Amino acid sequence: MDFSTDFKPLTVQPKEIEGKSFEMITEEIGEHSFTEEQYPVVQRIIHASADFELGRSVRFHPDAVRSGVHAIRQGKKVVADVQMVQVGISKPRLEQFGGGVDVYISDPDVIEEAKQLNTTRAIISMRKAIKEADGGIFAIGNAPTALLELIRLVKNGEARPGLVVGMPVGFVSAKESKEELAKLDIPFITNLGRKGGSPVTVAAVNALSLIAEQQG
Amino acid sequence: MDFSTDFKPLTVQPKEIEGKSFEMITEEIGEHSFTEEQYPVVQRIIHASADFELGRSVRFHPDAVRSGVHAIRQGKKVVADVQMVQVGISKPRLEQFGGGVDVYISDPDVIEEAKQLNTTRAIISMRKAIKEADGGIFAIGNAPTALLELIRLVKNGEARPGLVVGMPVGFVSAKESKEELAKLDIPFITNLGRKGGSPVTVAAVNALSLIAEQQG
Repeated sequence: MDFSTDFKPLTVQPKEIEGKSFEMITEEIGEHSFTEEQYPVVQRIIHASADFELGRSVRFHPDAVRSGVHAIRQGKKVVADVQMVQVGISKPRLEQFGGGVDVYISDPDVIEEAKQLNTTRAIISMRKAIKEADGGIFAIGNAPTALLELIRLVKNGEARPGLVVGMPVGFVSAKESKEELAKLDIPFITNLGRKGGSPVTVAAVNALSLIAEQQG
Repeated sequence: MDFSTDFKPLTVQPKEIEGKSFEMITEEIGEHSFTEEQYPVVQRIIHASADFELGRSVRFHPDAVRSGVHAIRQGKKVVADVQMVQVGISKPRLEQFGGGVDVYISDPDVIEEAKQLNTTRAIISMRKAIKEADGGIFAIGNAPTALLELIRLVKNGEARPGLVVGMPVGFVSAKESKEELAKLDIPFITNLGRKGGSPVTVAAVNALSLIAEQQG
């Protein structure tokens, strides 16, 4: 069989690929308890991970979608914990509202301060972010220490995020950090367990900016 | 309980976090059939995904690790399919051998040609990559169309990668593209099924560059 004719007709149109993927997800997920407002976020998370277990583990604060969309439409910044999250988030949809995506973890002042305090750059980057992105969306896909620090700053009354998308992955503190986030009464999107990561965090933010755009 | 004292001592030292994670992975994975040479790659993939199912689904061509490490030590380029893969790969370890990471998907000439041919930028970026990065490591974590095109170019004799790390994620063509890769008799690292993604692709390349560095 000619390989090129076998595969090419199926795969070359990005919009078709996405549409077909979304149909497959809706068929396969079956019954779930997400609201109509929440489901597009979950769908995009499953699209990014091909992992229904991860998708089903997503948890929303009741104000999460509304508040996240509001922040985007107000042109508030999105703060990414790491560059992989920053580059994945769709910029044009944020920029039309005056927003954008910032990441502080490689800033020279952050690196220097982390060294001096013998702590992670992720922690120091959150201390910088709450000053630079008040009311913004904090998208944490990699570093549990960033999420734990942000939770501490929220509890202290120092941080007032518009939304926290907290889905770090890993074996040490990831699960625990997300359980702590889910206890807060602030807008959050998170998931249960060790899984998570940059692509699902990106997917959640991109789902929200699509909703923001569709509201016209 | 004071939250800061509860969590902070566990989480602030990146090296400790990584070491503890790797211990947990080795404890939990149990019996497996990966070789001593392959296991560090699988371990890092599980570390990046917190997903043992994904880790166990990894498949290696027998020459994969040796050839990938050789390419890095020869200063061959790593080609990423998307920016998320590019930014995740550790640069200093590649640069000490004269290498680096390139991504072509957002190059103006790639965008223009994809438009003209009504195809994906991912496909055109692979056609460019095989000219710019002969003998290099092709790290494909996102776009099945990129992997399918690379496979076609290999079959045609137009591409001679030092290693293909092909772990795209998704519902349309991801699984199929990886099955095609696994049939080739060239050095590859891939996995079975729909799961995959940028972080696990990055993890595989970073594992290889660590091995390259350890060889002194």
